[in-house]
Amino acid sequence: MRAVDLIRKKRDSGEHSREEIDFLISGYTRGEIPDYQMAAWLMATWLRGLNRSEIAALTEAMLYSGEVVNLADLPGKKVDKHSTGGVGDKTSLILAPIVAAGGLTVPMISGRGLGHTGGTLDKLESIPGFNVNLSLGEFFSVLRECGMGLIGQTAEIAPADKKIYALRDATSTVENIGLICASIMSKKLAEGIDALVLDVKTGSGAFMKREEDSVQLAELMVETGRRMSKKVVALITDMNQPLGRMAGHSNEVAECIDVLSGRGPADLVELSIELSAWMFFLGDRTKSLDDGRLLAETMIATGQAKEKFKQGIRLQGGDERVIDNPQLLPRARSHADIPSPSAGFITATNCEQLGTALATLGGGREKKEDTIDHAVGLEFHKRIGDRVEKGESLVTIHYNSGAKLAEARSLITASYEIGEVAPRKSLPLIRRIIGA
Amino acid sequence: MRAVDLIRKKRDSGEHSREEIDFLISGYTRGEIPDYQMAAWLMATWLRGLNRSEIAALTEAMLYSGEVVNLADLPGKKVDKHSTGGVGDKTSLILAPIVAAGGLTVPMISGRGLGHTGGTLDKLESIPGFNVNLSLGEFFSVLRECGMGLIGQTAEIAPADKKIYALRDATSTVENIGLICASIMSKKLAEGIDALVLDVKTGSGAFMKREEDSVQLAELMVETGRRMSKKVVALITDMNQPLGRMAGHSNEVAECIDVLSGRGPADLVELSIELSAWMFFLGDRTKSLDDGRLLAETMIATGQAKEKFKQGIRLQGGDERVIDNPQLLPRARSHADIPSPSAGFITATNCEQLGTALATLGGGREKKEDTIDHAVGLEFHKRIGDRVEKGESLVTIHYNSGAKLAEARSLITASYEIGEVAPRKSLPLIRRIIGA
Repeated sequence: MRAVDLIRKKRDSGEHSREEIDFLISGYTRGEIPDYQMAAWLMATWLRGLNRSEIAALTEAMLYSGEVVNLADLPGKKVDKHSTGGVGDKTSLILAPIVAAGGLTVPMISGRGLGHTGGTLDKLESIPGFNVNLSLGEFFSVLRECGMGLIGQTAEIAPADKKIYALRDATSTVENIGLICASIMSKKLAEGIDALVLDVKTGSGAFMKREEDSVQLAELMVETGRRMSKKVVALITDMNQPLGRMAGHSNEVAECIDVLSGRGPADLVELSIELSAWMFFLGDRTKSLDDGRLLAETMIATGQAKEKFKQGIRLQGGDERVIDNPQLLPRARSHADIPSPSAGFITATNCEQLGTALATLGGGREKKEDTIDHAVGLEFHKRIGDRVEKGESLVTIHYNSGAKLAEARSLITASYEIGEVAPRKSLPLIRRIIGA
Repeated sequence: MRAVDLIRKKRDSGEHSREEIDFLISGYTRGEIPDYQMAAWLMATWLRGLNRSEIAALTEAMLYSGEVVNLADLPGKKVDKHSTGGVGDKTSLILAPIVAAGGLTVPMISGRGLGHTGGTLDKLESIPGFNVNLSLGEFFSVLRECGMGLIGQTAEIAPADKKIYALRDATSTVENIGLICASIMSKKLAEGIDALVLDVKTGSGAFMKREEDSVQLAELMVETGRRMSKKVVALITDMNQPLGRMAGHSNEVAECIDVLSGRGPADLVELSIELSAWMFFLGDRTKSLDDGRLLAETMIATGQAKEKFKQGIRLQGGDERVIDNPQLLPRARSHADIPSPSAGFITATNCEQLGTALATLGGGREKKEDTIDHAVGLEFHKRIGDRVEKGESLVTIHYNSGAKLAEARSLITASYEIGEVAPRKSLPLIRRIIGA
């Protein structure tokens, strides 16, 4: 078998066998197939597509390119959630404590932000001392002790995905649902979980702008997970505006603490409860989704989830005092308000552009190597449908350097559409459930 | 400008500006754009295509990635011929002496064989001592002294093409007429020529099997050359069977000497005279194509072309005695005949497969690094339309090692179609003239 022939096959719309995909992925992981051949194959694949059995084979080849964590020695079910990402999407930091407090194990291997989207690892690192780079052995110990662990992709986990993802990023071959599905699912299935809840975002701040694309990806991931005998459900959720009131790393951690303290904005609370409920239900912790909701609410109301977060932070080397004193998180030196240019109703936001504005301030990455300023952030005062007066603040910018402030300002101002009449009806936060 | 954005643009069927193509080609040549990004761009380009102005920009960018030979100090017009390649296609070794003897300068930068096709450089290297690796300075001296020079692509000539061609070969992005046109024309225009005759092959042994594809490529190359103020004409010629009676390196050189001696098979003589005539005509050496034919025939009949070939061989370090004594060329130790499995008429040949059979015997390359056995060859006894008896020899194999003989035998036997009735009418050797 030769890579050049497999490239040609996909170029000519051929269907790969499982053996062909194994050959490509294992050869590339071992360095026997060079980057340039994988790049050509990725572009051919991007343009020609992969069918369901090719996607399943690709997912498995990437999954078994490294270690699959064995959590069989830990008691109870292991569940996780994965989100396709967006602006202000911070639920991982809320779900892990709620679900671990509720008695399941949450082994969460997360990513970093890129472009307009934030990443769980970056958010956690705004907590002084928090170490996301645990070895698998340390991860296992933390999970045993407190039921939750939040780490980055180690060298042992799906190394093929790590290598391929970097190449896709550099060759404009990211946005293909087959490649996305295999990338996400190979990592998540390597965690040794029993069940997975997927939060597939849709809308102007999502990777998939159109709901039908989000649904297609969700169906694919659910099917792929089930082929591997995992319980999987996907929620299609709104990303036409930021989730919650905060974007930016410190800001978002503080907002998560708010939710775990029984406060926090309604949309973020709602989504956190729903996702937790699905995790409890799929993890056989509750008999129904309603019981799951109740359990999640109880974990918040009794303070158990907040205590669990505190314990998790401590076990990963972080300063647990931030829970009771969020002022210990890095704080931006300056603030500026973006006034509404007119009076009316917010009819839409360009949510991706809001994420880009945050990145511009230093709160995101353009390239993988970029460092992040955890203190900068955006505070959103208005949601779609809200009434706004001329000059009223739409957004408060938390910034450290004035250098890119003007650019961020104009991006933000241009991100709000203000009309004279209120939009007829807002779309629900949770659009659809796939695989229920 | 970023390579990743240009890859995305082509992936999404966008049209590149001249500046964008310059950025890609010069960045890649300098090593600033890595192989994997160029590979992804090539695949996107293969699948999405290039329009005429993109092809012109690509050709120029590749041409000016290196030196353009300045032959202004040499007297008279400089003309060349390029063939898209086939089996037994050896006319370069005949044309260069004829046209140089006729008073024009022929600066020929040629390639090596790959896959089922032979290459001019490999054929020349079957002449003991012949050096195709002249520096541009040496090339210039040889041209000044005898009017013909036959060398390989130096590091100075279109380095972008050299680098991109190797990458295309490894990434299944060869067969795209825009990329082919730019590759051929950038090299040929770098020779400092005034006029170019293109021999675009069509048929079962050609790169382009369908005549309409050959015509499309020919039109593109003619147009591209004319944009650069060169006189260019393309002949679409038959490659449904080998050209001449011989394939293999020594064998082909010997057959060229036959033609220059006033012998040789009719098809090879006809094509050599036609291509020479066009070179004389486009090079303003004759007032008409008919005069060109007459001049070519005279150069052969008077022995001047043969003497010119002898001089050319001597000046490039080769053993000129081969001209009068072709037995000095490497000769295969053994011979085997392929008997016709039945009586009837040859109705078709799988000409590409005949080329593959030669490569199998060691007379071709699968990979660039492979070495070539110049002595092995195939001698064809029957042409399409010929009557054959059962057991009569179709092909004589000249071989050195019996190891792959069986494989070559079965390839050759399977390459001939024999029917009970003669094919109605054979297609002409020269199908069409493009750009006349």
